[in-house]
Amino acid sequence: MRVLVLGGDGYLGWPTAMYFSNLGHEVLVADNLAKRQWEAEMDAAPLQPPPTLRHRIRRWEEVSGKEIAVAVGDIAENHRFVYDLIEGFLPEAIIHYAEQPSAPYSMAGRDHAYSTQRNNVLGTLNLLHAMKKHVPEAHLVKLGTMGEYGTPNIDIEEGWIDIEHNGRKDRLPFPKVPGSFYHLSKVHDSHNIHFACRIWGLRSTDLNQGVVYGISTDETELHPELHTSFHYDSVFGTVLNRFCVQAVIGEPLTVYGGGGQRRGFLNIRDTLQCVRLAVENPADVGEFRVFNQFTQVFSVLELAQLVVEAASHIGKEVQLTHIENPRVEAEEHYYNPRNDALLALGLKPRLLSEELVEDMLGRIALHADAIDHATLLPTVRWREDAPVPTG
Amino acid sequence: MRVLVLGGDGYLGWPTAMYFSNLGHEVLVADNLAKRQWEAEMDAAPLQPPPTLRHRIRRWEEVSGKEIAVAVGDIAENHRFVYDLIEGFLPEAIIHYAEQPSAPYSMAGRDHAYSTQRNNVLGTLNLLHAMKKHVPEAHLVKLGTMGEYGTPNIDIEEGWIDIEHNGRKDRLPFPKVPGSFYHLSKVHDSHNIHFACRIWGLRSTDLNQGVVYGISTDETELHPELHTSFHYDSVFGTVLNRFCVQAVIGEPLTVYGGGGQRRGFLNIRDTLQCVRLAVENPADVGEFRVFNQFTQVFSVLELAQLVVEAASHIGKEVQLTHIENPRVEAEEHYYNPRNDALLALGLKPRLLSEELVEDMLGRIALHADAIDHATLLPTVRWREDAPVPTG
Repeated sequence: MRVLVLGGDGYLGWPTAMYFSNLGHEVLVADNLAKRQWEAEMDAAPLQPPPTLRHRIRRWEEVSGKEIAVAVGDIAENHRFVYDLIEGFLPEAIIHYAEQPSAPYSMAGRDHAYSTQRNNVLGTLNLLHAMKKHVPEAHLVKLGTMGEYGTPNIDIEEGWIDIEHNGRKDRLPFPKVPGSFYHLSKVHDSHNIHFACRIWGLRSTDLNQGVVYGISTDETELHPELHTSFHYDSVFGTVLNRFCVQAVIGEPLTVYGGGGQRRGFLNIRDTLQCVRLAVENPADVGEFRVFNQFTQVFSVLELAQLVVEAASHIGKEVQLTHIENPRVEAEEHYYNPRNDALLALGLKPRLLSEELVEDMLGRIALHADAIDHATLLPTVRWREDAPVPTG
Repeated sequence: MRVLVLGGDGYLGWPTAMYFSNLGHEVLVADNLAKRQWEAEMDAAPLQPPPTLRHRIRRWEEVSGKEIAVAVGDIAENHRFVYDLIEGFLPEAIIHYAEQPSAPYSMAGRDHAYSTQRNNVLGTLNLLHAMKKHVPEAHLVKLGTMGEYGTPNIDIEEGWIDIEHNGRKDRLPFPKVPGSFYHLSKVHDSHNIHFACRIWGLRSTDLNQGVVYGISTDETELHPELHTSFHYDSVFGTVLNRFCVQAVIGEPLTVYGGGGQRRGFLNIRDTLQCVRLAVENPADVGEFRVFNQFTQVFSVLELAQLVVEAASHIGKEVQLTHIENPRVEAEEHYYNPRNDALLALGLKPRLLSEELVEDMLGRIALHADAIDHATLLPTVRWREDAPVPTG
């Protein structure tokens, strides 16, 4: 199958490109490489500096004997880039990670909110028009986020909800209360994609992904230069990855507020599995399908406690500390999201365990000298009157 | 009160500016004048060519003895413009019409979808950040559209719906299924504004407005050069206005498809009244309030029949004809939207009647020579395989 991976230079995009290449698909990776600029801007380097995109693709070809094609360009700024890309490659599946992925980045000020929604919403809008013109039967697998839903006081269904109201019924999009301009951009995307499916008969799967953790996949293990961009900083690093890095350098795990915030989580290896299941079982023509993509729900405090336990088993005494929450979010709330659809397609979750955390701690420890602890504390506040955390 | 009218050069913005000026408020009008370019681009002139914005403001001052301040600039392209505007004027109420207002325009191709969402969503995003910085207690009165809801099979509430699901309850944003990239831009706005209210404590009223009709207000009547930009073309003209123009020149009223599409409608004079009621009764700090702003529900066919009747009473025999629907929309559907909130605040609807249509026909007839009938038929199709109507 011809698989286009948009945003193929990122934390998830690069492992996805190798994974689909390894499965025998014809893979084309596109990226504008903007993430590398955003990292520099936010003073947030990944744990290991990534080789250039073309370098890692050459390394992948040496190691695997398989080719990955590459295109560098910006789908939001330059619609000709995405039209030509799609007309030239005629993808059957498009896996779309080409978005600014950080909530704190989007909350850093007007310019960051603006560029996040410009990049994410208008890039996807260009993509939809290019698909309509050149590959109306291709399957768009779009990465969304569980953060689109917020924390409603009812069970979170997968994208849609059956509502009975004043004696009548309809199945409607699940109401969204997202928590940052980044999360909002994903809600906007979802509405735009749903519309394109309804009006033009495009087909799409919207993967509302939980918080991803993990540093390795089968393919990143094949060569030291095939690693992915593992972030642990407060802007691009996800919470479990950040806690693991704090444990490795013996700093207290910084829990935002009370830590009762509950979220869906999944292993980066399960991200690959979920995306594969979506690609192999495409949405129908005209269908806008939503899967909630996570395997377990934890509170932030539970995760911190798990890391403390795992660290103690390898002889590291680690503390956890509560710092002022830089975000505006409920710290105690109901949270019961469904995730049946991907399980029904055959997802075999790799559940979080102390062993897995110990393995992460070991891998991170190999690069402990490179860790910059100054980037671990939050610098972006959702509201000006929230004090800067002092940890 | 200091009232900032964004988009004050338009069909609704200009009458709104005069109306608030007449009420004794200190009014500042801002506009990028882009609508005049879009009209030229789409070959869609208003019935009477509008004077320049500054000319009509000078005329208003002569006629009324009241001043309106003016600023020309683009809130989406130039965030400094909106920051400086708001810092300098310190508005207490901001009435926000500064958006591309046409569904067909937004469906004319990639560039039109892109520029519509860029202008509308990113312009409002800049505005929210400027409000947060300089006037966090100002009241944002934002024009949305009833088209955000689509045509669900349940009653349409005003922005929010109480959902009971699996034995638990929450009050959540009403699910939206909008019908064009324009309508989508308003849904995106609503989510962004709701967020700004939740996180920063801004206050806003989102007016989900029905289809506006009418050509005159008390203020436009005061001088021939104070008229508003009345559109009757298929891109910027709303349906009743278009039917009235067709009746005046004796052409058949072109009903899209079966005409069973039901929508909320209101008189342009009631738009002014509703906006005034919102401004005089502001949302609370942190509140995102939604009002459905229409006074009556009609099907498109019922409207056409009303115009046929009214025309016959002034001696004009008019036909109606069904043409292929250029849009993708349900032509028979349940439609029961609520509009209690504005009525509770004291809205006195000016209901549609044959007399009112006769009055419109008379006013339009004064400019019958200027009508360009070539612009009456739809040129933009929602889906390529829908044939161009030949009407």
